[in-house]
Amino acid sequence: MTADRPTRWVHGFSSGDGSMGSLLGNKGANLAEMVRILGPEMVPGGFIVNTAACVEYMRTGTAPDGLDEQIDAELAELERASGKGFGDPSDPLLLSVRSGAPVSMPGMLDTILNLGLNRLSLAGLAKISGEPRFALDSRRRLVQMFGEVVRGVPADAFERALTAARERAGVAVDSELSAEALEGLIEEFLVLVADSTGDPFPEDPREQLREALIAVFDSWRNERAVTYRRLNGIPDELGTAVVVQRMVFGNLRSDSGSGVAFSRNPTTGEAVPDGDYLDGAQGEDVVAGVRNTEDLEGLRRRMPEIHAELLASLAELERHFKNIQDIEFTIERGHLFILQTRNAKRHARAAVRFAVDSVEEGLLDRGGALQTIDPAALEALMHPSIAPGSEYREIAHGVGASPGAARGAIAFTAEQAIAKAAEGVDTILVRTFTSADDVGGFNAARGIVTSHGGKSSHAAIVARAMGRPCVCGAAELEIDADAGVVRANGVELAAGAEITIDGTSGAITADQVPLLTPELDPAFATVLEWSDSIRRLEVRANADTAADAAQARQLGAEGIGLCRTEHMFFGNGREALVREMFIAGELWRRERTSASRQRFVDALERLEKLQRDDFAELFGEMRGLPVTIRLLDPPMHEFLDLNALERDLADARAAGEEAVALASEGLEVATAALETNPMLGSRGVRLGLLLPELYGMQVRAIVDAAAGVGVGGEPPEVEIMVPLVAFASEFEEMRARIEEIVASEAEVGRSTPSYAIGTMIELPRACLTAGAISAHADFLSFGTNDLTQTALGFSRDDAERELIPLYLERGLLPRSPFESLDVEGVGELVRLAADRGRASRPELRLGVCGEHGGDPASIGFFDAIGLDYVSCSPFRIPIARVAAAQAAADAKSER
Amino acid sequence: MTADRPTRWVHGFSSGDGSMGSLLGNKGANLAEMVRILGPEMVPGGFIVNTAACVEYMRTGTAPDGLDEQIDAELAELERASGKGFGDPSDPLLLSVRSGAPVSMPGMLDTILNLGLNRLSLAGLAKISGEPRFALDSRRRLVQMFGEVVRGVPADAFERALTAARERAGVAVDSELSAEALEGLIEEFLVLVADSTGDPFPEDPREQLREALIAVFDSWRNERAVTYRRLNGIPDELGTAVVVQRMVFGNLRSDSGSGVAFSRNPTTGEAVPDGDYLDGAQGEDVVAGVRNTEDLEGLRRRMPEIHAELLASLAELERHFKNIQDIEFTIERGHLFILQTRNAKRHARAAVRFAVDSVEEGLLDRGGALQTIDPAALEALMHPSIAPGSEYREIAHGVGASPGAARGAIAFTAEQAIAKAAEGVDTILVRTFTSADDVGGFNAARGIVTSHGGKSSHAAIVARAMGRPCVCGAAELEIDADAGVVRANGVELAAGAEITIDGTSGAITADQVPLLTPELDPAFATVLEWSDSIRRLEVRANADTAADAAQARQLGAEGIGLCRTEHMFFGNGREALVREMFIAGELWRRERTSASRQRFVDALERLEKLQRDDFAELFGEMRGLPVTIRLLDPPMHEFLDLNALERDLADARAAGEEAVALASEGLEVATAALETNPMLGSRGVRLGLLLPELYGMQVRAIVDAAAGVGVGGEPPEVEIMVPLVAFASEFEEMRARIEEIVASEAEVGRSTPSYAIGTMIELPRACLTAGAISAHADFLSFGTNDLTQTALGFSRDDAERELIPLYLERGLLPRSPFESLDVEGVGELVRLAADRGRASRPELRLGVCGEHGGDPASIGFFDAIGLDYVSCSPFRIPIARVAAAQAAADAKSER
Repeated sequence: MTADRPTRWVHGFSSGDGSMGSLLGNKGANLAEMVRILGPEMVPGGFIVNTAACVEYMRTGTAPDGLDEQIDAELAELERASGKGFGDPSDPLLLSVRSGAPVSMPGMLDTILNLGLNRLSLAGLAKISGEPRFALDSRRRLVQMFGEVVRGVPADAFERALTAARERAGVAVDSELSAEALEGLIEEFLVLVADSTGDPFPEDPREQLREALIAVFDSWRNERAVTYRRLNGIPDELGTAVVVQRMVFGNLRSDSGSGVAFSRNPTTGEAVPDGDYLDGAQGEDVVAGVRNTEDLEGLRRRMPEIHAELLASLAELERHFKNIQDIEFTIERGHLFILQTRNAKRHARAAVRFAVDSVEEGLLDRGGALQTIDPAALEALMHPSIAPGSEYREIAHGVGASPGAARGAIAFTAEQAIAKAAEGVDTILVRTFTSADDVGGFNAARGIVTSHGGKSSHAAIVARAMGRPCVCGAAELEIDADAGVVRANGVELAAGAEITIDGTSGAITADQVPLLTPELDPAFATVLEWSDSIRRLEVRANADTAADAAQARQLGAEGIGLCRTEHMFFGNGREALVREMFIAGELWRRERTSASRQRFVDALERLEKLQRDDFAELFGEMRGLPVTIRLLDPPMHEFLDLNALERDLADARAAGEEAVALASEGLEVATAALETNPMLGSRGVRLGLLLPELYGMQVRAIVDAAAGVGVGGEPPEVEIMVPLVAFASEFEEMRARIEEIVASEAEVGRSTPSYAIGTMIELPRACLTAGAISAHADFLSFGTNDLTQTALGFSRDDAERELIPLYLERGLLPRSPFESLDVEGVGELVRLAADRGRASRPELRLGVCGEHGGDPASIGFFDAIGLDYVSCSPFRIPIARVAAAQAAADAKSER
Repeated sequence: MTADRPTRWVHGFSSGDGSMGSLLGNKGANLAEMVRILGPEMVPGGFIVNTAACVEYMRTGTAPDGLDEQIDAELAELERASGKGFGDPSDPLLLSVRSGAPVSMPGMLDTILNLGLNRLSLAGLAKISGEPRFALDSRRRLVQMFGEVVRGVPADAFERALTAARERAGVAVDSELSAEALEGLIEEFLVLVADSTGDPFPEDPREQLREALIAVFDSWRNERAVTYRRLNGIPDELGTAVVVQRMVFGNLRSDSGSGVAFSRNPTTGEAVPDGDYLDGAQGEDVVAGVRNTEDLEGLRRRMPEIHAELLASLAELERHFKNIQDIEFTIERGHLFILQTRNAKRHARAAVRFAVDSVEEGLLDRGGALQTIDPAALEALMHPSIAPGSEYREIAHGVGASPGAARGAIAFTAEQAIAKAAEGVDTILVRTFTSADDVGGFNAARGIVTSHGGKSSHAAIVARAMGRPCVCGAAELEIDADAGVVRANGVELAAGAEITIDGTSGAITADQVPLLTPELDPAFATVLEWSDSIRRLEVRANADTAADAAQARQLGAEGIGLCRTEHMFFGNGREALVREMFIAGELWRRERTSASRQRFVDALERLEKLQRDDFAELFGEMRGLPVTIRLLDPPMHEFLDLNALERDLADARAAGEEAVALASEGLEVATAALETNPMLGSRGVRLGLLLPELYGMQVRAIVDAAAGVGVGGEPPEVEIMVPLVAFASEFEEMRARIEEIVASEAEVGRSTPSYAIGTMIELPRACLTAGAISAHADFLSFGTNDLTQTALGFSRDDAERELIPLYLERGLLPRSPFESLDVEGVGELVRLAADRGRASRPELRLGVCGEHGGDPASIGFFDAIGLDYVSCSPFRIPIARVAAAQAAADAKSER
């Protein structure tokens, strides 16, 4: 910065481009780029106050030197190009002022419209537009927004005045208010502003602009924005740019309207533009979903030439940005303006179809096409649908806005949906329309229904992005959330009543209809195939049964990364045998008599046969692939259900004294085994040390089953995993014992498979000492669920009930650390462990088998730190395959 | 290693010195050094096979090339010097073979005595000694030790034969067996060896030596030694040296005997040599404590010249090694031999006295003198004593072997003592004599009594080292551990009966006698003063009451590092108020009605007054010093005692319906607050987020109390500590709230003190993200207790009952991680956090307030990683002061 060359704070649209996001903000850079592509005729003119000006303002507390002069120069240029004057009483130039940060912070920063309207220019606008009511409404909006955003007058003060005015006029909506009523309202608003702030509303347009600009700069530091940045790791130092743009109006009477449009169908991905149009309306009316819109066909019927122009522009923008575009447009008296373009949010079905089509069309290469997909949303492709041919009665019908069928209890508020989800109850969120406040409810609910709004409504957009089935604009529904009922066609349903919705057809029914799991979309199959050719990470499944294993293999699993043997202890009436085994084990530990040992051994022998059969079935499904079996992990007393033991005791009273003694003993043993903090108690390898016979039984069952499967064909690659290791000494001892058991099996003439021995890293200490532990381990598998519990000190069962929702609500946590890896804390432990493990043993295999193994953001991290594989639930495998491919492509592009 | 210069494996004593420990082992190097000081006449000759030979043997599995030849050369030299021949039938040279590792591994490796005796030389030894029985007994011992140690014959096989021989002969002890009986026994032993191993006992002396040497090498890798090394972090690669030394015999008839002696009194530190002597006995008989010994005065009476020679040697050795020496000596027919010297284990009283005297005598400087003290043992100086003038009846009297008085229930085995300690019951371990197997019991018991052995017995040495009061050789006690009773002077006491012992006077009584806490020893005061001038670490106390604070300040605390406010919630009938506060708080959270808020606020106001008074008292004691107050930490339901609430409900039934409804509500709220893993639940800062009013109340009470104390004089330096922080966001929010509360106190005209705000680091995530957390913190205090729980996944309450004892027993853990910091795991977290915290905020103050703050080993670590202070229980403060000085001296000497 030198004295003879003043710092540049302001850029006209035509002097920027799409690459200047960090200086001009995303919105500004995209507008500049759009001017380059579509020409200045189609984009309302304007200029950008850059982020450097914001940073300088934050540093000094005053607008930087030279800013006013540079703005004046751009204003003069804008007046010249538009032929209007800023504050000109006869033909006023009106401006919008919007924030535009270098990273997307949706809804966090402020916007003010219609700047430049004052008492004088109001008349000019009325005259030149020929619509005095339009001019008055524009001024009403300006004073209201300026009051709220710039001066901090509470929003409800204006709303109360509006409601009173409607009541006086006896009308239902603002647009029916007469010019006289609007005039009165404007005066009321002006008083409100002056009284609340002690400073009258500025009638000088230049002063309006100056204050608005500072307000947008200040909004960078409001609490909401600071929290958002903290949650998303956005540096406070970036600052926001401010876009100043000429207003155009869709809410004039003739040949005017506003809409949003997509370059392709955002639901199906079909290469046909799609959108919503509202004649004679402003853009915000379309998005709010307050009035029902028509589709682009409606626009074609009204203004065929404009329609054609719109389609051509969409195609041009899509070709340029190489992605489905989502634009906002306004038609002002037969002139089409495009106000904004961005990559479209889309349903998973559309995402995979676009990815495949874009490669076929030569728009993108495979890696680039994969990057356009949000892998988390792919879950929707595995959503069920209503079985074809089912008969049911619809209680209402709306727009199929996000495909898939869902069933659940009616919830009228996000809070209800969240509370029910915490109890494990599926819900359908039923709302008149939705807003940002409802997003937590979207996540908690299985599906969403609204009575207002179309495919571009908030509800539809968010539901598609989150993969939730959604029916929008089901106008027959009469929703009374306060009373907790919804009525339609003579049916009345209360909160909690079960309904089923079909987000493809738009059907809503209270009948019991059969749901079907979907077939794999062919485009999805192609996407998965490409992902496999690109990714570096291996993808395995967490699967405990042969059925899960078969499904996982079908979905592309390259092995089982976690078989939780305890799941084999439940069901098929095994609980009683497992209880007996643990009680006998505890008695043996306590008494060390041959009778107690015999009882324990008997129970173990019976279990061993069952486990061997389970493993044999599982191994049969996984021939040729690795299968990691985790030795028993959960706290012992999880198997010693006190209620069941009390029932046993009650039953025993009928069967005589001996039975009572036995049952009492069982109850006593189970009670003695209770622990204050079972999560930190006698579990994992500690069980193996307390009851060596139990792990011995499991190891024998594993090797015998594997050997048996090996006789009939290719065996799986058996990996025995010791859980909850904290000390190298534990693992060393356990490894020696496992090897001894296998050797003794071989000694008695049994064939034994080759196998690996590793450990599950789920304690912070294990991460820090991974070097020592790895000296003895063939592999480490990170159990990130338990690692999150211990590293963060959150007991998952307890914390998800109350603490984590509280933390999310308060902005203390960006997302649940049990859903997406806490990279700074748990991730840092994993990174340290991976580095130390590899340093000690370069050939060590490293994987993740916590639920984070199926979370795309976490997968990116695991790829970046060089793990070998992730393992996740079978239904998340396709997601993991795509996420792993994206991570590999990212890594490649960073090199 | 070149061809023309053969590797040296063997060193004569006269060719080594004390600095060669890593090559010659400690024992060997000290022997070599002793030859240099005392001359070869006083140290039986010998040579050392070095550790390199052992390492080479471990590598190749065979004795290294050239070893035999080098041994032969040294043997020839030894024969020349002694005038005896190895295997010479007329005057045989006998040898001992002992392991001697570079680091002390007491009792872990093997020893064989009397090598060189065979059928032929036996007769020569009998003839030349003139004592055929002695010769036979020597051969009996050789065959037995060789069988056990070299050939692995089970020890009880020999013991059974010995017992049978004693029974046949009708004698009680081995020494009464006749020559004929010994001859028979030797034949039996030879058969045992040949039969057990299929290989006869080698009669060739050279073969005996060769096998013995290999056996000692092999003992380096036996399970016991491997476990010991793992526990003590000793590398497996060191190998052991082997000391081969000429046998001298104290068990001849005339002018012979053995003893141990100390250069100063190891109990009092008085500069007077002390020891035990046993006439006509071998060294092992003295240490075993099987026969009662006489003191050095006894030796003076028998052999005044030898006594004088011994004292001169002791003085010489002490001067040379600059520490109290503990020697083993043998007198063989009027010739004094010193077989071993080492630094003496000593009672804390002796340790501080020696430290002070050694400086006065010019032997050591202050830093060096402090290094001779084991700080952990200093606890004994704060042991109680029996109140002077108390009247009680002694049931028996023994040697006061480790000072201090102790009271407890009789335990006859280490297991009993450990089990009782786990229940919180104090015990006195009562044994005939003790061995290494009993050490766990020493730790668990408050005191030790034996019926056999003197001040040099195993029991006495270990008790002194561990600071446990001990009475030895109380011969009147008739201990029948199997029957679980002890009888003396007509009294019979069963296990569990309470006795009191005085380890200073030797008294044992079953009467109730008053115990007194001791005055500070003047030498101890000097040691503490020196420590304060040397140490870098600040020492603070964990104290929750004014009384604790006063005691801590008196013991030298430089502030309070941890005041646990929850302790103020108990006692004085406050429990009911605290219950009411939490119940009201929960109802307020749930209902958000003004009635529930009022109820909560009322309870808080009553508590606030109490807390303010508590703080005021505490602050009054700590004027001018820092006081860290921790806001409430424990899980809420710890305060909601279900039993008390059930009692309330029962009581309420009498008081009418309204009371019942209230009590039922309380019980319901408390039940709902139960958590699966409370340690990982709603506690610490989470309470502050769930119930902001509660932390608000505490903060107000703190600042108001501090301001009040400040009016009357110098205020303390108030530090407010937020517990259980995992995320920088939590701390940031809490800091803002605390500042807000203080500001609003100031606004209403109250004076407010200056204060700091910091956090307690007790979660692994907090350690990893200490950089971000420190951006907002004035200090971090490591809560290593909870950090150990979460890092290791051990719930302390549960784990100390069963898991940790199991881990210690199996050698999976070196010591309880709750007593001494787990340096590799928890220590690594602390180190990472300290580094990251300081990098983010160089002026950050760092301390430790877990119990490890009072553990000397842990203090060394905390000093090494640069923390600013440790905080520990008041009675540990002197220990911490000395340990901190040692750490500083270590750090200085390393520079």
